[in-house]
Amino acid sequence: MADFTDSEVFLAFSTYATIVILKMMFMSPLTAYFRITRKAFANIEDTQMGKTPDEKKKMLRVNEDVERVRRCHQNDIENVIPFVLVGFLYTLTGPELSTALLLFRLFVGSRFVHSFVYVMAWPQPSRGLSFFVGLCATVCMAYHVLAAGLRL
Amino acid sequence: MADFTDSEVFLAFSTYATIVILKMMFMSPLTAYFRITRKAFANIEDTQMGKTPDEKKKMLRVNEDVERVRRCHQNDIENVIPFVLVGFLYTLTGPELSTALLLFRLFVGSRFVHSFVYVMAWPQPSRGLSFFVGLCATVCMAYHVLAAGLRL
Amino acid sequence: MADFTDSEVFLAFSTYATIVILKMMFMSPLTAYFRITRKAFANIEDTQMGKTPDEKKKMLRVNEDVERVRRCHQNDIENVIPFVLVGFLYTLTGPELSTALLLFRLFVGSRFVHSFVYVMAWPQPSRGLSFFVGLCATVCMAYHVLAAGLRL
Repeated sequence: MADFTDSEVFLAFSTYATIVILKMMFMSPLTAYFRITRKAFANIEDTQMGKTPDEKKKMLRVNEDVERVRRCHQNDIENVIPFVLVGFLYTLTGPELSTALLLFRLFVGSRFVHSFVYVMAWPQPSRGLSFFVGLCATVCMAYHVLAAGLRL
Repeated sequence: MADFTDSEVFLAFSTYATIVILKMMFMSPLTAYFRITRKAFANIEDTQMGKTPDEKKKMLRVNEDVERVRRCHQNDIENVIPFVLVGFLYTLTGPELSTALLLFRLFVGSRFVHSFVYVMAWPQPSRGLSFFVGLCATVCMAYHVLAAGLRL
Repeated sequence: MADFTDSEVFLAFSTYATIVILKMMFMSPLTAYFRITRKAFANIEDTQMGKTPDEKKKMLRVNEDVERVRRCHQNDIENVIPFVLVGFLYTLTGPELSTALLLFRLFVGSRFVHSFVYVMAWPQPSRGLSFFVGLCATVCMAYHVLAAGLRL
């Protein structure tokens, strides 16, 4: 077991996976920040800022900036978690370090670009492209996993 | 370690887990397809098709077909990821190959049926039933994991 | 391999991870329960209760109780899955049993409190606090993973 957990490929995987998971989790405080600065909440118990019940109720609203960050978070969930799951199975197939590093870096890099571009609302195709690069890295790893031993 | 990653149960798990994750990830391009054909987007930077600012703004709308695919994707996230996580722990408990294969096939099969039925809007209880079969497979594996060694 | 899967830290991880995943999955039937009792559905094929087409269409509505449970489920996805993924990598670094148990218990306990407080709509900062405790446990494990072997 120690042979595996000390291998360069596994250490690279665990580093990149942890970094991109932390990046994904960072979207939660970012959402909270936008909710507070935009005064747009989803739960009545979060509107303590408001003094009157009327003012509180007005804070239960949908704000475009908040929704943007939430969509970005959701997109992370849809892509980062498959990467970590497939990436672990890929690491277990014993890939070449150089190939693995390339795929891990491509994915993690593309997700940082994706989040930045999404929150900043940069024009397309920057967001679509960064999404696509990440998707390709995961699909490539999935192909390697299936090729290493397909049992149906 | 190689004993484990070469075992039939692990190879079956890695095959089925990868397939069902790919199926889940396929919902992203499907959502994009529906967004483009229905001209219903969430981000203003995605409405490049529109010529005038007015036309662009009109494309920022909620479309029932798009929402249906998104709910289907969300349901996948809520069920496929627990399956992969619990399934890996279950694989580590060294289950019988026949039992493991049965559970993996039931889950993966039920999720393909679920997505098809959801997107096609087939009458109930087809969707509820396929959801329930998948849930049972995961809960069954979770029970085996807890039974194999409970440490609180 | 058996040395690892029989270790106390791994068994504790697999127990707590499975319990908190089951807790997360329980939000699905809870949502269904609220949807049925509140008669608020998202899909037209789910409104079989309604007799006339008009009555069915009226059931396609957003209900605050349903949305609350769904937000709670979403928050679980955003936090429980990172915990399980990072927690597994953390378990592989061979942490002290006492530290690992403390972090696992803190996280799982905080998530049960979080869901209860969320669904019951208790006043803040109960929800924010329980969210924050869980977040800290995961970030703490992520730090240990990165400290155990950083390969960029």
